[in-house]
Amino acid sequence: MLKHPALLRLPSLAPQIGRISTPSSFGLRRISAAKFTTTTMAVENYTFGPYKIDSKEVFYSTQLSYAAVNLRPLLPGHVLVCPRREVKRFVDLTAEETSDLWITAQKVGRQLESYHKASSLTFAIQDGPQAGQTVPHVHIHIIPRKAGDFEKNDEIYDAIDDSEKEMKQKLELDKERKDRSLEEMAHEADEYRKLFV
Amino acid sequence: MLKHPALLRLPSLAPQIGRISTPSSFGLRRISAAKFTTTTMAVENYTFGPYKIDSKEVFYSTQLSYAAVNLRPLLPGHVLVCPRREVKRFVDLTAEETSDLWITAQKVGRQLESYHKASSLTFAIQDGPQAGQTVPHVHIHIIPRKAGDFEKNDEIYDAIDDSEKEMKQKLELDKERKDRSLEEMAHEADEYRKLFV
Repeated sequence: MLKHPALLRLPSLAPQIGRISTPSSFGLRRISAAKFTTTTMAVENYTFGPYKIDSKEVFYSTQLSYAAVNLRPLLPGHVLVCPRREVKRFVDLTAEETSDLWITAQKVGRQLESYHKASSLTFAIQDGPQAGQTVPHVHIHIIPRKAGDFEKNDEIYDAIDDSEKEMKQKLELDKERKDRSLEEMAHEADEYRKLFV
Repeated sequence: MLKHPALLRLPSLAPQIGRISTPSSFGLRRISAAKFTTTTMAVENYTFGPYKIDSKEVFYSTQLSYAAVNLRPLLPGHVLVCPRREVKRFVDLTAEETSDLWITAQKVGRQLESYHKASSLTFAIQDGPQAGQTVPHVHIHIIPRKAGDFEKNDEIYDAIDDSEKEMKQKLELDKERKDRSLEEMAHEADEYRKLFV
């Protein structure tokens, strides 16, 4: 089994290192520096479309799916659940992947709704460009909801759309990606990870 | 349990007859009249929260889920996929129900996107009142999408919200429910049913 990403926390790396997609993720380089490459303590490799996702941002995973915190959450606890395999459209998933993805989403939703003291959840897949998808890798938006969080409920979807656009922009434009630090995201993921022990 | 208003669209029935919950659905009554009650040709009984859904509106079903046309589709092919068991929240579904629901949604989405010559799909669950849910029975909105169908993509969600409100209102207020006839809905369901043979 692969190593749990939480074990790889080292405080000494510059925050911008590895921001742009490279063959090795930020986490993998850190492991290499720590001379762990020849052990069985491999870091898991998560991709999101053409991008690499730092394992510190992932707080729950199965053999087929993973759940990660967001660069710019619309509301507290807004996370993404993705299949590990990079497929663009929902129909491209096997039955096993589809089941695993949604059982993962169900589990993640339950824990984050409770953690954030919310009372409802928004689940949405923008499946294809005409539905607002920007990153061509299936992803479920899960958003814990509370009374009055958005003045009109539909504003959450407006925000999801903007978020998709920003997500792509931010993943591509490394220099502008200053809204959330890896540390902040890793901290949030650490908190969520405890919910799934 | 309330009867689904679409059941009452026969010219021979006074509009208000049977509005309130009765043990037999329209379909079941027809079977009984035709002396089929002792055969195996039972009509399936679908519920949507407190309402009965006419089996004519259902175009695909499994042992655990069903897919039905909408009273007021936002776009061509806007349908709902529901678990047969009446549960309010997504977390209330068993793993088996969750898998079946989404494998059903995947299958339905594939066929309706193709049938309507669309290029994307919106999948959304408004899971709980604070997420916009009005009928307390888990349901996935599936909406085939095309370029330019809504000026801004998020307007589809605005429309989903309005649709949820209307759905409840229309299911409750029969007199105002003049937007789609059972015949029209049954015809649409007949067309879709052919896609799953």
